[in-house]
Amino acid sequence: MSFVKKFILDVDGVLTTGHSIYSEKGKIYKIFGPHDSDGLKIIKNKINTSFISADKRGFSITKKRIEDLGFSVLLVSEEERLSFFKNQNPDEIIFMGDGYFDSEVMKIVKYSIAPKNARPEAIKQANYVTPSRSGEGAVLDACLHIDQKFFK
Amino acid sequence: MSFVKKFILDVDGVLTTGHSIYSEKGKIYKIFGPHDSDGLKIIKNKINTSFISADKRGFSITKKRIEDLGFSVLLVSEEERLSFFKNQNPDEIIFMGDGYFDSEVMKIVKYSIAPKNARPEAIKQANYVTPSRSGEGAVLDACLHIDQKFFK
Amino acid sequence: MSFVKKFILDVDGVLTTGHSIYSEKGKIYKIFGPHDSDGLKIIKNKINTSFISADKRGFSITKKRIEDLGFSVLLVSEEERLSFFKNQNPDEIIFMGDGYFDSEVMKIVKYSIAPKNARPEAIKQANYVTPSRSGEGAVLDACLHIDQKFFK
Amino acid sequence: MSFVKKFILDVDGVLTTGHSIYSEKGKIYKIFGPHDSDGLKIIKNKINTSFISADKRGFSITKKRIEDLGFSVLLVSEEERLSFFKNQNPDEIIFMGDGYFDSEVMKIVKYSIAPKNARPEAIKQANYVTPSRSGEGAVLDACLHIDQKFFK
Repeated sequence: MSFVKKFILDVDGVLTTGHSIYSEKGKIYKIFGPHDSDGLKIIKNKINTSFISADKRGFSITKKRIEDLGFSVLLVSEEERLSFFKNQNPDEIIFMGDGYFDSEVMKIVKYSIAPKNARPEAIKQANYVTPSRSGEGAVLDACLHIDQKFFK
Repeated sequence: MSFVKKFILDVDGVLTTGHSIYSEKGKIYKIFGPHDSDGLKIIKNKINTSFISADKRGFSITKKRIEDLGFSVLLVSEEERLSFFKNQNPDEIIFMGDGYFDSEVMKIVKYSIAPKNARPEAIKQANYVTPSRSGEGAVLDACLHIDQKFFK
Repeated sequence: MSFVKKFILDVDGVLTTGHSIYSEKGKIYKIFGPHDSDGLKIIKNKINTSFISADKRGFSITKKRIEDLGFSVLLVSEEERLSFFKNQNPDEIIFMGDGYFDSEVMKIVKYSIAPKNARPEAIKQANYVTPSRSGEGAVLDACLHIDQKFFK
Repeated sequence: MSFVKKFILDVDGVLTTGHSIYSEKGKIYKIFGPHDSDGLKIIKNKINTSFISADKRGFSITKKRIEDLGFSVLLVSEEERLSFFKNQNPDEIIFMGDGYFDSEVMKIVKYSIAPKNARPEAIKQANYVTPSRSGEGAVLDACLHIDQKFFK
């Protein structure tokens, strides 16, 4: 019997509202929500937790936030995602994502989670859909669900 | 029989939430959403895709975002819009818009699309209304719909 | 018989979403919406239109936006509002407001309008409540309504 | 019989929308809403009112806003919260909070209030849930409710 060993989360549209604020110089801000840091604290010592992002232009913003939260984040493009997961025992991974292409990853991991406002393609594949929208507590919802389902 | 050859999209309220963030120096930020770049990638090689905007004050912000996405954008005022479309075979154009005056353009193009949160005047004229709001995936919805309807 | 001669609008929560973005230096941004400039263009030559604001700290931001739209704005505190309106024939004024104290002004003017997301106290007093929220087209709704009701 | 003597409010997700805007330099903006200053004016002379925040990184932003409103704010971490309240006669305190850990505080104070969009854990414990969301008038709702219930 396989056991979940890793929790990997996408960032934009999962830990953020999904919005990018642009000036004439380019993408400069992202909008993160409340509550999620409480959830990450709860599961942090129970499961190896990390983040991935496909957003090259906003990566320095993403990195700053993830490191402020005490985690690490890797830049993994949409094209590389499927092989990224296949290379590390997908059957031991919980994945939380929201996008059109994330639905493909959801098919191969052990367990998948989508925020309430994810793309319908991701929601259709997800094992669990959070009651909260991204940037409004979806990651806390996910952490409480994981804690309840896999560690109690 | 005429065939769609171009996909022209308005920017504010279609690719953005519609909001303009102002400082005491003027309009300095716009809020773009997730998912839309995935949709534009899907149809990019199938139909000539470009953007128009009537927002002179925020044009440098708009231009930066559209060029980051790999497309081009023209400044076309509301007064010029109708003749802009009439001058390039409107019967070959798919137009996506959200505003009060966009409803006039929608009457003369081949096919028209409005985001869920468009003005009622635009929604009334549109051939297709997206399930998502602007800045929350409306352009991905539109691209998937165009791909399905015109290229499959 | 009295006739409407002026349209006076509050700014925050009417032309904006109501939000103030703060940095450690104070209030620095406000969020304005789409569509409203189209409405103001439609009625501009039909009725004398101007703005008031009680927000001293954000007044330079407010002023910049209102002047970009081609109108003027006065700083009128909540305490001064009632006498401000009483001093200029309230029976000739249409007022659009959203706040707790705006409901008092609504009782003395000729006609009053509140955005959908106004305070319940203002909505209760308003002659007309717009179908759109502030910062999402409420002022365009109001302008179309005024044009229809008073000028057609 | 005990009497309420203090009104203590959390800041993020109560007086703000809960969102943090990040640049590559870190947390730099928070989004405050309309209406709440009207409420705080109404109860200010009736009950000792102050704020607490657990957000260390955004504390300078929080402090600026609270001081602009004419109040003071203390940094009280989640771990310290329960003892912070126990040390000052919780039976005389009205507390307004929105988070997962705030629900613990709500169990020991005299009266507790949660904004409409608070975590379900807080809503479950609250004596009163405001009709408005945080950053859209929840604190004005709370102040009107307190004025009505305790001072009339």
